[in-house]
Amino acid sequence: MTPGTRIEHDAFGPVEVPAERYWGAQTQRALAVFTIGTEYFPPCLLHAFGLQKMAAARANLRCGALDAERADAIERAAAELSRGRFDADFPLTIWQTGSGTQTNMNANEVVANRANELLGQPRGGKSPVHPNDHVNASQSSNDSFPTVMHIAATLEIQQRLLPALAVLRDSLADRTQAFRGVVKIARTHLMDAVPMTVDQAFDAFTRQVDLGMERVAGTLPRLRVLPQGGTAAGTGLNAPPGFDTAFCEELSRLTATAFVPNPSKFEGMGVHDALVEASGALNTLASSLIKMANDLRLLGSGPRCGLGELRIPDDGLTSSIMPGKRNPTIAEVLVQAGLQVMGNHVTVTMANASGNFELNVAKPLLIHNLLQSIRVLADAVRVFALRLVAGLELNHERLAANVENALLAVTVLNPVLGYDRVAAIVREALASNRGPREAAVSLGLISAEDYDRHVDAAAMAAPHGLSALRQEPSGTSGRG
Amino acid sequence: MTPGTRIEHDAFGPVEVPAERYWGAQTQRALAVFTIGTEYFPPCLLHAFGLQKMAAARANLRCGALDAERADAIERAAAELSRGRFDADFPLTIWQTGSGTQTNMNANEVVANRANELLGQPRGGKSPVHPNDHVNASQSSNDSFPTVMHIAATLEIQQRLLPALAVLRDSLADRTQAFRGVVKIARTHLMDAVPMTVDQAFDAFTRQVDLGMERVAGTLPRLRVLPQGGTAAGTGLNAPPGFDTAFCEELSRLTATAFVPNPSKFEGMGVHDALVEASGALNTLASSLIKMANDLRLLGSGPRCGLGELRIPDDGLTSSIMPGKRNPTIAEVLVQAGLQVMGNHVTVTMANASGNFELNVAKPLLIHNLLQSIRVLADAVRVFALRLVAGLELNHERLAANVENALLAVTVLNPVLGYDRVAAIVREALASNRGPREAAVSLGLISAEDYDRHVDAAAMAAPHGLSALRQEPSGTSGRG
Amino acid sequence: MTPGTRIEHDAFGPVEVPAERYWGAQTQRALAVFTIGTEYFPPCLLHAFGLQKMAAARANLRCGALDAERADAIERAAAELSRGRFDADFPLTIWQTGSGTQTNMNANEVVANRANELLGQPRGGKSPVHPNDHVNASQSSNDSFPTVMHIAATLEIQQRLLPALAVLRDSLADRTQAFRGVVKIARTHLMDAVPMTVDQAFDAFTRQVDLGMERVAGTLPRLRVLPQGGTAAGTGLNAPPGFDTAFCEELSRLTATAFVPNPSKFEGMGVHDALVEASGALNTLASSLIKMANDLRLLGSGPRCGLGELRIPDDGLTSSIMPGKRNPTIAEVLVQAGLQVMGNHVTVTMANASGNFELNVAKPLLIHNLLQSIRVLADAVRVFALRLVAGLELNHERLAANVENALLAVTVLNPVLGYDRVAAIVREALASNRGPREAAVSLGLISAEDYDRHVDAAAMAAPHGLSALRQEPSGTSGRG
Amino acid sequence: MTPGTRIEHDAFGPVEVPAERYWGAQTQRALAVFTIGTEYFPPCLLHAFGLQKMAAARANLRCGALDAERADAIERAAAELSRGRFDADFPLTIWQTGSGTQTNMNANEVVANRANELLGQPRGGKSPVHPNDHVNASQSSNDSFPTVMHIAATLEIQQRLLPALAVLRDSLADRTQAFRGVVKIARTHLMDAVPMTVDQAFDAFTRQVDLGMERVAGTLPRLRVLPQGGTAAGTGLNAPPGFDTAFCEELSRLTATAFVPNPSKFEGMGVHDALVEASGALNTLASSLIKMANDLRLLGSGPRCGLGELRIPDDGLTSSIMPGKRNPTIAEVLVQAGLQVMGNHVTVTMANASGNFELNVAKPLLIHNLLQSIRVLADAVRVFALRLVAGLELNHERLAANVENALLAVTVLNPVLGYDRVAAIVREALASNRGPREAAVSLGLISAEDYDRHVDAAAMAAPHGLSALRQEPSGTSGRG
Repeated sequence: MTPGTRIEHDAFGPVEVPAERYWGAQTQRALAVFTIGTEYFPPCLLHAFGLQKMAAARANLRCGALDAERADAIERAAAELSRGRFDADFPLTIWQTGSGTQTNMNANEVVANRANELLGQPRGGKSPVHPNDHVNASQSSNDSFPTVMHIAATLEIQQRLLPALAVLRDSLADRTQAFRGVVKIARTHLMDAVPMTVDQAFDAFTRQVDLGMERVAGTLPRLRVLPQGGTAAGTGLNAPPGFDTAFCEELSRLTATAFVPNPSKFEGMGVHDALVEASGALNTLASSLIKMANDLRLLGSGPRCGLGELRIPDDGLTSSIMPGKRNPTIAEVLVQAGLQVMGNHVTVTMANASGNFELNVAKPLLIHNLLQSIRVLADAVRVFALRLVAGLELNHERLAANVENALLAVTVLNPVLGYDRVAAIVREALASNRGPREAAVSLGLISAEDYDRHVDAAAMAAPHGLSALRQEPSGTSGRG
Repeated sequence: MTPGTRIEHDAFGPVEVPAERYWGAQTQRALAVFTIGTEYFPPCLLHAFGLQKMAAARANLRCGALDAERADAIERAAAELSRGRFDADFPLTIWQTGSGTQTNMNANEVVANRANELLGQPRGGKSPVHPNDHVNASQSSNDSFPTVMHIAATLEIQQRLLPALAVLRDSLADRTQAFRGVVKIARTHLMDAVPMTVDQAFDAFTRQVDLGMERVAGTLPRLRVLPQGGTAAGTGLNAPPGFDTAFCEELSRLTATAFVPNPSKFEGMGVHDALVEASGALNTLASSLIKMANDLRLLGSGPRCGLGELRIPDDGLTSSIMPGKRNPTIAEVLVQAGLQVMGNHVTVTMANASGNFELNVAKPLLIHNLLQSIRVLADAVRVFALRLVAGLELNHERLAANVENALLAVTVLNPVLGYDRVAAIVREALASNRGPREAAVSLGLISAEDYDRHVDAAAMAAPHGLSALRQEPSGTSGRG
Repeated sequence: MTPGTRIEHDAFGPVEVPAERYWGAQTQRALAVFTIGTEYFPPCLLHAFGLQKMAAARANLRCGALDAERADAIERAAAELSRGRFDADFPLTIWQTGSGTQTNMNANEVVANRANELLGQPRGGKSPVHPNDHVNASQSSNDSFPTVMHIAATLEIQQRLLPALAVLRDSLADRTQAFRGVVKIARTHLMDAVPMTVDQAFDAFTRQVDLGMERVAGTLPRLRVLPQGGTAAGTGLNAPPGFDTAFCEELSRLTATAFVPNPSKFEGMGVHDALVEASGALNTLASSLIKMANDLRLLGSGPRCGLGELRIPDDGLTSSIMPGKRNPTIAEVLVQAGLQVMGNHVTVTMANASGNFELNVAKPLLIHNLLQSIRVLADAVRVFALRLVAGLELNHERLAANVENALLAVTVLNPVLGYDRVAAIVREALASNRGPREAAVSLGLISAEDYDRHVDAAAMAAPHGLSALRQEPSGTSGRG
Repeated sequence: MTPGTRIEHDAFGPVEVPAERYWGAQTQRALAVFTIGTEYFPPCLLHAFGLQKMAAARANLRCGALDAERADAIERAAAELSRGRFDADFPLTIWQTGSGTQTNMNANEVVANRANELLGQPRGGKSPVHPNDHVNASQSSNDSFPTVMHIAATLEIQQRLLPALAVLRDSLADRTQAFRGVVKIARTHLMDAVPMTVDQAFDAFTRQVDLGMERVAGTLPRLRVLPQGGTAAGTGLNAPPGFDTAFCEELSRLTATAFVPNPSKFEGMGVHDALVEASGALNTLASSLIKMANDLRLLGSGPRCGLGELRIPDDGLTSSIMPGKRNPTIAEVLVQAGLQVMGNHVTVTMANASGNFELNVAKPLLIHNLLQSIRVLADAVRVFALRLVAGLELNHERLAANVENALLAVTVLNPVLGYDRVAAIVREALASNRGPREAAVSLGLISAEDYDRHVDAAAMAAPHGLSALRQEPSGTSGRG
């Protein structure tokens, strides 16, 4: 025997395993086969496996499929897994069989070895706790792995993404208030349009995030539906009656989140529509945030030769050759994060489409991409909110100068003069390089006094009054 | 003047237009500029423009922005547009400015010319009804085009896609009943697994469609929120107070669908998250349907050298060289339709991300792709339901023979013998090319009698009884 | 018999067909089955079918598989098809079986009916020319349809896309010359950077197009490799020896393009990697053109509150509410076209991945998307070149004012003062809202005279002289 | 000062840095800002930075921009970086500014600190070697980072991907030889078609890989074109004349790969078309490999209820619930890897499209995705070749039985009986559940003797003889 190893056995025979590690024979065999890539499951997935094995042990005890001693030891070991103690005992990358079987077996082996240890037995003996017969009792990889996918996605959305979005929402709402009533030029097609107020733009951003949160949260009811109990292929073979319900009750208690059994285990294992749906909500959000980040980058461009209406907070980072140059680094991060989410969504979608019969076999790929999207988006959103949005200030001089130049403020004269005559004013102003007031008067279409009475940028920026701004509580999204 | 033409004028001067057509100067100019592609807006979008101009005319009348004569003429002309009379008067492809301005102007010009005609005036005179001052009163392309996008998407989903999905759902549910209790071999990783029943597979398909409908319908509340009333850039400039609400009320009455104003017009014009969300629901559905279609294709493969468990109805089409060969043509169509939807979704997503400031400028592209996805998916689903699913029959001989060969039915012995001994049985059966019963007995692990008592395919196919099958009304999706 | 119809027969029996149409029984049956969508094959694909049937008839004659009378009649009928005479006789959408069999049969039927007519026989008699036995002789849909896909893609790239790109390349090169030596501010991260010249930017655009053409043309050698001769599944069954070579020779003569047989017919029918590769070249180009179009839009933004360094030609189109507003409509079209190409590329890629065994069965979808990408990109590029790029002018006042404000021109002092002291100058200039010269002198880091000697925008815009600009002939792409 | 730290300075002031680390102030600041994600640049990118700093130091020496002492120390430190010594000194994730400036500064700081150390000076003193003035001399992040992107992609393709593909190509060619002449049933539309030979299928696979290698290698000429020398924004400011050429010469010597300067530095920094092109070649390959892996999975399905024509080698991994079940794990890995590459390609494409003016600002994202695609594809291909393809064996009994059942072998009778009569034989065989020979004779269409003479599966599997198989040297791809 190689020094520093112990012998583990599986159905195919003995295997040498590093003595200090908790994994067993199937994990070790898989390590030798899948020498691919460097992409590992994030800890949140491993911890979700801990929760899943805990809930399964308790459900097995309730249903009579495990005795109390074994159930208790498994639960204790799995609890340690759920708290991160065995993160280093999952050596496999995501590039494994499409059912995630190797990582489920890894979890079974780690928990069995640790449970036996807690019961005073050595690792590798599979006794009294056997990785398949006991840790995996009433379970298959077919139902356990997708259950863990759902648990991890649910908790990451609840605990990481939605709170980060709430921070962004609040930062934007704060800036909306701070910029209230400041007049600016609107831009459509990148071209100067009519006057508006800065808060109107930030209110739109706020609503984008509000609705994005609503979309993401709207996927949770289906994420919380679990295929556990389907065992092999969805049949429920070898699981006692009521196991699925007992499992969900125990898991819900452990996580303070209401998980329920999937009425069709086959649906829950053969396709992962609920995960594609969740990825789709991230994809929508990503496309929306990219637009927002680009707006802020462009409005902050300059400092002297750009639009320059916004001042983006300094982050202390600069160019390697142009000393003191400040760049909108964090906005660029958010754009990049969004593009990653959008590409991941394509992978997730195709992964779902590629299943056959009773099993989707792109599960590790699918959940890896989804959890990456959640994590990256959440982190980028939080940094964007706290380090960029929260510190935004206005360049009032530039804003005012631009409003002053706002040629198409004359749009307000349409009801007075008619569209065609207003067009003539604009053409004249452009041709003579004059302001619209001067052009209008010179054409004899309106007196200077009447012009000034009608063309009032501040008034037309919020023609129905500032009180017309959105005031409903966030999240109602026009449904009411 | 060229024979067969008349002169139309716009702010840039006179233009010759075909005499028999209703469009005007801006449409004609655009025709000369945008000589690109062959992709036209589908009629449903043009008809939605009719509805939008009708509702706007009525709202303008209510708000005092149009007199009754003009409002009435506009409404009548727009009603004709909504019913398809002017489909041939929209000659522009989707390859135009990103705001859809040219098609909005086309609608304004067609309606103005027709309204003037109804009022006894010639086309081209812009009097008494002016395309900008009256048909477009209280509107901009900035708010009208996205409003029309939402109207068309909403109605197409409600009237075309959801009914088609209901047909598929019912066809699948019918086959679920028809195939109830028939035992088959399950397949995971494409490999023989444990016994199950055919209805379990079809019940999963049914649930996929149920949930897909729920997802698609779940996007409607946000699709029914309209930016109309935002006019230029979202400000509401030149729209009378209350116009947005009046518009939605009129439109809701016309369509029997509850549309509401967007509380942030800026959000409704600068991003199209709601449309990306809807596209995402189609994308999820597409990936799910592709898996379903592939399952049916594979189960129907053969007729003699494939899996051959299903009989796919004959569609009367055959190979050009292999006489009498029958192919699963309709399943292939659904797969192709699904792949189109998935690619379109990428375009839709990127289109949304590419906006700037107060206006997304990929609107024609975005709505073209979304409406194509809805239409193609709806049509393909309907044909798939009626011509393929509804006529599916089982090959009972093949199903029974496969169950007979089901090596891994011995999984049911795990609780009796333990995982490791059952593995030995399987290895022995494979090595000796025997059945599992013979192998198990020969290894002395179990008696033939006990084997037969435990290993009962029909019993294990539904270990918790057929009554355990999903019985809740469709659409509850485990939420309750 | 229904009035206005005639009876056609196929292996399944008689079918009524509109009397004036040339299609036959299989087309008519398919029409009844595939009531899906409105996407039709573009004429270029139908014309390519004409070329394919012509070349096949001639090859069959050479190989002795058809007599001269039939071969000649088929060739004449197919020549009419290739010239567009029967565009209206292809009533099927792309939503058909994944082999394109129905459109191949449609071509067989049209050509047979027309050939019989040319030989004095009625349509529908299948004599003396039979659609399967003669028009399709030595062929299958399995090899004919992908052959037609390759022909259409090759010719569309050669005749439509590459010429359009050449126009754009020349327009850009012309503007590069016109703008030679004009100094402007460079922008990185959207922020003001160091001085450069306008021609440097346009030279980069020109090189993007040069390389894009090289990439697109680089796919042609593999597009010109044809699977014709593979017949059923790639075996070549029922095709005479040498048929593939004879076919390619005839086709090459007809098209003046060198097509060659695929040495593995199976590769040419089972996957369409060559078409994905071509789509990939379009995708690369699309992403590059989007960046270019956005640059021009942004540089032309304003007219008074944007960057305003470029003047985009007026296209006579304007806003429906803001009279006289000019928008960069054509740049927006190119962006939208590029996004369509990028989404289509995803569909094309997935379509290729979805084949099984001896046949890819997403052929109609794949070629529809590829041909749409080619067409839309070619048309949009041509309009962009002729109506936007060719008319671009500079706003010299704005350019000069921006260069005057160029804070980071002090980067040129790095070798003199060191990075850290130059950073201090920039910080001081920003803090005191002064120019960098004033700040540098006030900090005592450099004399005004020395400053002026070093900081010369025109000199630093092309520090190695204008002669350092790229001067090699286009298309060498640095390979030499 | 915090224990275990030292003080580093940058243009913004002092920063505490862990004493044992080599990075400096800008890296430390970035660490505090970008608390996002867990995606790190792969070592190959860091090592490429080492090569880039080495070549730059040598070019600076040659051009007189650095003295020999500093150049030598920088070269020695950078060489250590290139060999992996400082992998742990790059603590930043990819989620940073879109120019990759923070990682370029990290490299500058690590190399400066190490160079000073080699020269007997402490870390943090920036003397005699300054990270900006000396390590980054004649460089900017704007040109250095994309240069490193190109170096890393080139070397990874050359050293990792192409060799792995060669292994797969050889494994497939070996199986082609091993399976030569074995008759099997072809399948089109998943349905039984005509006989063919197993080697024909594997020859097609081999050609897919041959052409895939050709496509990937075909991108190298443009990957080897480098923007180094462009410095700030592409202008070449502060780089001595000839620096770009000297750099490429030194780098080419170091890497034994011919890199050349980009004639338009602006093109090389503003867009990354060459990298999108490379990603496109991977995307094409991925879609092709997915099809191949699926074919092998399906042909190996069973063992008793699937197609079962191939035997996939046992990898010692099995189900957690179904003891002894063998699954095609490695084929599933390759499919998943391919789907990742396809999604990454979307991200890469969008990243390229999202640049503005003189700088693409999605560089870290773009190169991360591209290098991941290369790595994952290379690793998965190698495992697939060595552990799956190399061990494939045939199930001769199943193959022969299927050929025996091959109904559509009667296609060979088309030239004898005509398409319509052969169709009648097939219909009769299906209706009466008989073999085609029996059906044909019973219909009186052909004698049994004539039938046997014509219908010979082995003969028709390779109708033009086995010698007709592709025999040209790999890689010619029909171009010759």
